[in-house]
Amino acid sequence: MYTIACDMGGTRIKLGLVKDSKVITTEVIPAYSGKGLKPRLPVMVETINNMCNKQNTLSKNCIGMAIASPGVISSDNRRIASMNEKYFDAPSLNLTAWAKEELGVPLFIENDARMATIGEWKYGAGKNYDYLVMMTLGTGLGTSAVINGQLLRGFHGIGGLLGGHFTVNYNGRKCTCGNIGCSEIEASTVSINELAKAYPGFHDSKLANEDVIEYESVFKYAADGDLCASYLLEHSLKVWSITVLNLVHAYDPEIVILGGGIMASGDIIIPAIQDYLEKYTWNPWDKARVVKAENGNNAALLACEWLLKNKLNLK
Amino acid sequence: MYTIACDMGGTRIKLGLVKDSKVITTEVIPAYSGKGLKPRLPVMVETINNMCNKQNTLSKNCIGMAIASPGVISSDNRRIASMNEKYFDAPSLNLTAWAKEELGVPLFIENDARMATIGEWKYGAGKNYDYLVMMTLGTGLGTSAVINGQLLRGFHGIGGLLGGHFTVNYNGRKCTCGNIGCSEIEASTVSINELAKAYPGFHDSKLANEDVIEYESVFKYAADGDLCASYLLEHSLKVWSITVLNLVHAYDPEIVILGGGIMASGDIIIPAIQDYLEKYTWNPWDKARVVKAENGNNAALLACEWLLKNKLNLK
Repeated sequence: MYTIACDMGGTRIKLGLVKDSKVITTEVIPAYSGKGLKPRLPVMVETINNMCNKQNTLSKNCIGMAIASPGVISSDNRRIASMNEKYFDAPSLNLTAWAKEELGVPLFIENDARMATIGEWKYGAGKNYDYLVMMTLGTGLGTSAVINGQLLRGFHGIGGLLGGHFTVNYNGRKCTCGNIGCSEIEASTVSINELAKAYPGFHDSKLANEDVIEYESVFKYAADGDLCASYLLEHSLKVWSITVLNLVHAYDPEIVILGGGIMASGDIIIPAIQDYLEKYTWNPWDKARVVKAENGNNAALLACEWLLKNKLNLK
Repeated sequence: MYTIACDMGGTRIKLGLVKDSKVITTEVIPAYSGKGLKPRLPVMVETINNMCNKQNTLSKNCIGMAIASPGVISSDNRRIASMNEKYFDAPSLNLTAWAKEELGVPLFIENDARMATIGEWKYGAGKNYDYLVMMTLGTGLGTSAVINGQLLRGFHGIGGLLGGHFTVNYNGRKCTCGNIGCSEIEASTVSINELAKAYPGFHDSKLANEDVIEYESVFKYAADGDLCASYLLEHSLKVWSITVLNLVHAYDPEIVILGGGIMASGDIIIPAIQDYLEKYTWNPWDKARVVKAENGNNAALLACEWLLKNKLNLK
């Protein structure tokens, strides 16, 4: 039987049908997340019905639906408890009632960083590990942790998710979250444009020709010897290494999984962070191993099936 | 029935008998921890036998013995797996066999920071909480965490213990642990003398007259308007606040318990850290509450009884 899977990104909503740990089909619709989630719900229903039709089934014949969502999710996985900017109306929506009425299925929700982690933990680089940390190098720095074979959730539901918001530079920059010197504001796509412009030789750099600086260009120009790009790369690798070290010191995992778009340059990132852990981890006899995520964008969709089966006590 | 309790500090070893959540009697012997644990074992046996005699009992009639020890403890709580400087020989000793032969009782061991936390969690400020973090402001910064009603241990047994060794200042000082800019080296008794001497106006400060600067003097002279002491106090409160914020962002606890000798000035420390959490915690709707430890030096001894009963499945 199919699981209806949904990955609610800030710019696109990815819908899919998953069966026996395989993503069978996917459709992507624009998110317009700044306008809230409610206007998107009819489009989601239509898209899901179309996908089901093509597989010769009906939504009500699926096991259920699961959503990977930004924000804080209630501990029973039925409600979006709190949302930061994107999909501002989601906490006011009764999504389980919506899924029951419109699709005829039960619905469960989990935070998207945790879902990416589930996707790797159950089906990818984290298989058979009971202690792991995942960090996603995307727009920001997303994290999540598995401790003793269980997802860390914490008292308010934010446990493990804020690894990008530990203070690593106490005299540092003001983060979008309000805190000072978080990793995310010290080195991520959120801050890379500002960081570049603050570099004294910025105007001599190839990066000065880009409207919006992405890490892809930073890696490319750094390889060509561009001074500004080289500085940004070195600085970012340092901040990411410190971030991972702090996560290792916090959660004491066996492995650290790195995912996200920036990991296209994993060949440079992984050895740098591994080297930093070897040098600076307290634990003297065994350092956490840094590995690359395996399931890319499908991790969250695969996790939908796991979450649903887990919640419904299936298999 | 009595529990034989032992708190292995760096300078003193505290022994006691605990019964029904009460410390009945204690004896303190010097630790000479730089010379290893082995030479201390006969003295410990003698002291324990004396304590038992005075209570009209024998060691073999006790439930068992538990030790709060520095270092990394094996996950079965039977062995000291790794030790940093103090009691260097402890990992090579078969302490369970020693307790069986010399005292006729089973023995269990746990890390001293976790034992202090158990003492507060089960008998003190953390009673009835399933999500808590403890930080001890002593010589260094010790930490430990309870998540979902369970002590965090981690894959290698160091989970939760290294909260004083997250990097909070990435351009900071080299810590005794080898890492850069840890909280412990940025502001604790470990570093306060160096910090004071680096202050430009140090020689005009009353602190310049002290052989070894302790936080007690820092708080006292800061209250008198001493500039160097005021700077050190402000700096330390900032570092400790950031440390607690990072712990809150890591573990998402309901409460944070602060213990250790420096908490004699808790009236100043607690409001400062609480205020910082109110300002900078990500979680917008409910901040962790900062409270003072209640059981002081007895926390670890009380925890010995809990550990033993827990391990032996009693009560």
